Amino acid sequence: MSGTLYGIGVGPGDPELMTVKAVRLIGEADVIAYPTLAGGESFARAIASGVIPSSAREIRMDVPMTHAREPAQAAYDKGAEQIADALAAGEMVVCLCEGDPFYYGSFMYLFARLSDRFNVEVIPGVTSMTACAARAGLPLVARNELLTVLPGPLPEEELRKRIEGAESIVIMKVGQHLPKLRGVLADLGLLDRAIYVERATLPEEKVLPMTKAPETAPYFSMILLTKGADPWL
Amino acid sequence: MSGTLYGIGVGPGDPELMTVKAVRLIGEADVIAYPTLAGGESFARAIASGVIPSSAREIRMDVPMTHAREPAQAAYDKGAEQIADALAAGEMVVCLCEGDPFYYGSFMYLFARLSDRFNVEVIPGVTSMTACAARAGLPLVARNELLTVLPGPLPEEELRKRIEGAESIVIMKVGQHLPKLRGVLADLGLLDRAIYVERATLPEEKVLPMTKAPETAPYFSMILLTKGADPWL
Ligand SMILES: C[S@@+](CC[C@H](N)C(=O)[O-])C[C@H]1O[C@@H](n2cnc3c(N)ncnc32)[C@H](O)[C@@H]1O
Ligand SMILES: C[S@@+](CC[C@H](N)C(=O)[O-])C[C@H]1O[C@@H](n2cnc3c(N)ncnc32)[C@H](O)[C@@H]1O
Repeated sequence: MSGTLYGIGVGPGDPELMTVKAVRLIGEADVIAYPTLAGGESFARAIASGVIPSSAREIRMDVPMTHAREPAQAAYDKGAEQIADALAAGEMVVCLCEGDPFYYGSFMYLFARLSDRFNVEVIPGVTSMTACAARAGLPLVARNELLTVLPGPLPEEELRKRIEGAESIVIMKVGQHLPKLRGVLADLGLLDRAIYVERATLPEEKVLPMTKAPETAPYFSMILLTKGADPWL
Repeated sequence: MSGTLYGIGVGPGDPELMTVKAVRLIGEADVIAYPTLAGGESFARAIASGVIPSSAREIRMDVPMTHAREPAQAAYDKGAEQIADALAAGEMVVCLCEGDPFYYGSFMYLFARLSDRFNVEVIPGVTSMTACAARAGLPLVARNELLTVLPGPLPEEELRKRIEGAESIVIMKVGQHLPKLRGVLADLGLLDRAIYVERATLPEEKVLPMTKAPETAPYFSMILLTKGADPWL
């Protein structure tokens, strides 16, 4: 009997925002897998560290930081084979995923490689999107409103076009793209309404109006543009 | 000293998808508040029922089922006043919210009424969006892709326009709008790619291709249109 692979969302940062199911399944795992960027620490592993059993073996996938796809694909190929060996031996494998596994998460690379051969279950988690909204006190969407989620690395023209036609907006993966995004929002007259959130739910969290955002943003940052709380009276 | 109001996301249905923080705070509450639609059961209360302390007092907000805004606003006004009395008396009040409080959640109506006068904290939860994606085995978005969330009640023309310009799409609040949505997707040649999900993470869950969706959908249903798992190899 092959084991099961669980892709588990561990939420946006605060370990208490893991689900009860995530905590239980991580505690039962034989093997804990996670990707790291360029040999750094794994944020997902840090979030879950308090509940990882000391008996668990760990599979670390070092994904190189590059725009070329092949090196990253090779890292997931290798990780998938190591996980496949564990599953074939009947082990229960948990892959830790920051936020939710299927919301801009790298778990889909393992899912694509393994879900036709093995039993794979995805356990949803709290996304950084709603965590940032909660911490900023900004209702995201209600009633018959649209929500548009845009990645910050998109080209300026594409961002401009998408923002113009949108209602509530979430901009992910801000990081090094902050100056470009500031420019686009200023051009569209939206800078005053935008909120910048960094490392939401962690002790180092920052929530600031975009006009007061720092010059450089870390990878774990986001911009929210919503109607605010007033229209809900 | 006034008490704190917590708007707590209890996730999409499976009680194990509550966060550790939600379970802890619900267990500490003096007062548990929740809205109900047209005098029915509260789904959020049902999800949390196993962890509500027997000592807690309950505030039920009966929101009438109507398209007019005033009766609903009157229900939230009344609920907000009852909650304000409890907070003023120093009690800890938890408002239970299905999924996440700020993602198409009614908690924003209480937030708008109370957050200027009282300490209000929002605890994010797992949204139905990522729960449906997890249960359907459908990665939602990755890399530099856009995500568009559309409410099913939107007019046909608006839906058509928004779907045409989008990449990954989530359609919320399907329910009685299923026939209209089926028509729009068929016209756009997208019916074969759409997935229908009903009551995700509950024992009665259904995950079906749109072409096999039932004739009538319950309120707790959603349509997902994504690239599927293949492109992630
Ligand atoms: C590769 S995506 C992963 C998203 C994750 N799967 C989720 O569900 O939130 C990484 C991006 O998520 C956002 N992010 C993740 N955690 C965050 C946090 N605690 N605060 C602010 N943004 C965060 C940032 O925009 C970051 O660039
Ligand atoms: C008023 S919205 C509330 C959304 C909630 N705040 C959240 O974060 O998911 C209600 C809509 O959410 C969706 N929904 C909520 N729970 C669901 C479930 N378990 N399965 C499928 N759809 C669900 C349906 O589209 C439903 O019409």
